[in-house]
Amino acid sequence: EDIKIGKEIIKSGQRIKPWHIPALLEVDVDTIRVWKIKVGVLSTGDELVQGRVKNTTQPMLLSLIREYGFEPVNLGVSNDDIDEIRRILDENPCDIYIITGGTGPSEKDESKQFLAKYGTIVFHGLNIRPSRTTGFGVYNGKPVFIISGLPVAALIAFENVIFPIIKCWLNLEGEKECKVNGILDRAVTNIIGVKSFVRVKIYEKEAQIFVEPLKVTGSGVISSVIDADGYLILDENSEGLPEGSIVEVKLIR
Amino acid sequence: EDIKIGKEIIKSGQRIKPWHIPALLEVDVDTIRVWKIKVGVLSTGDELVQGRVKNTTQPMLLSLIREYGFEPVNLGVSNDDIDEIRRILDENPCDIYIITGGTGPSEKDESKQFLAKYGTIVFHGLNIRPSRTTGFGVYNGKPVFIISGLPVAALIAFENVIFPIIKCWLNLEGEKECKVNGILDRAVTNIIGVKSFVRVKIYEKEAQIFVEPLKVTGSGVISSVIDADGYLILDENSEGLPEGSIVEVKLIR
Repeated sequence: EDIKIGKEIIKSGQRIKPWHIPALLEVDVDTIRVWKIKVGVLSTGDELVQGRVKNTTQPMLLSLIREYGFEPVNLGVSNDDIDEIRRILDENPCDIYIITGGTGPSEKDESKQFLAKYGTIVFHGLNIRPSRTTGFGVYNGKPVFIISGLPVAALIAFENVIFPIIKCWLNLEGEKECKVNGILDRAVTNIIGVKSFVRVKIYEKEAQIFVEPLKVTGSGVISSVIDADGYLILDENSEGLPEGSIVEVKLIR
Repeated sequence: EDIKIGKEIIKSGQRIKPWHIPALLEVDVDTIRVWKIKVGVLSTGDELVQGRVKNTTQPMLLSLIREYGFEPVNLGVSNDDIDEIRRILDENPCDIYIITGGTGPSEKDESKQFLAKYGTIVFHGLNIRPSRTTGFGVYNGKPVFIISGLPVAALIAFENVIFPIIKCWLNLEGEKECKVNGILDRAVTNIIGVKSFVRVKIYEKEAQIFVEPLKVTGSGVISSVIDADGYLILDENSEGLPEGSIVEVKLIR
């Protein structure tokens, strides 16, 4: 009744939000074709298959994928074996793949070898910290991300590399980023040439917002994320920031 | 390995986020008790039961409930009959109920009558626009929200009354609100004594953020939400705001 003729209710590629439903029903559209984007996660590493190391990253990624509105597909674990990786991907058709582990600088890193032999590497290695070893390629026409098996590195890669690329690739609209400005309560340092994602806590004092960088000793330190409200992103040209700087923080969801 | 003894990973009442999973796994917690909060939605109105009016609000609310992380329960439609309402609620145990329709100022408004007769009315009627007829009460120890059956009013009530009350009631932590400041590109007016939720669009021009109030002719006008990026909230003491005011906009998710 209130929707005018010619009014565009939803664009192709846009995510359906709750309020689109009454608008579609008002114009007598009660079914629409939707594309559920399947994102498969494969963890690689003999140590995971043998159970010597706990796979904490895969369940986090599957949960992140669902949180971001995609359909997670658990591809389990694979040995460091490019043909096993290939077989698992072939047997489980997905729209996007994420492979964890085996993406370091060494020669025997099998995710990278898999992409190099059977697919195409678009990029490998980024000047970001954590998550330097992030790579991206194509296998069988499908985008494949190769990322660290460490949970914090995988989280940073997902939120800051994988999701932005998917968003751009699928033309996803209406995905807002939440940011807040505050006063840095302690100096932070950075290595020139590296873009750093510093986990921070936000607090209020005397009606002002303060940003506290969390002390981090390694990219496996998931507790730094548990306590964080967001990231402060230090540019590759920055040597760091003094206490008292006004900074922008990207809130984590 | 990196989680120190005594470190609190997750509080009771906190929502589980993807990064809690690796942290819990690291300390060998692989199952935890979770409370899936069931929110039941019942739409009332003879006109809905007879199919004379399309029920566009109920599927939107069910989708909103899921989007906000709760478990939606479809309680269908009921006639304007307080005993039918009671029977449906008794047969479908939920943690929270939302009843749409029958909450207006007239004597024959059955949601209100239902609460008055079989439960307790905590409040009924708010000086907000849209969604003046919002009410809240308790039936059988369970919170019951009674809201308008019009989709925009129901949406505003859900986001600005129901969810904040649930958040407060359950002590839900870490739910951030997204806000942005911008320049109002057209004057808006308000009626003293009423808190108004004005749907607005946000756009950028010459590196500045502008806020455009959408023209709205009635609270059933769902197209005003389709086009909106957020709300501008006008306080009950405000007569309105002139063009050029710096305003804060609450982004819709």
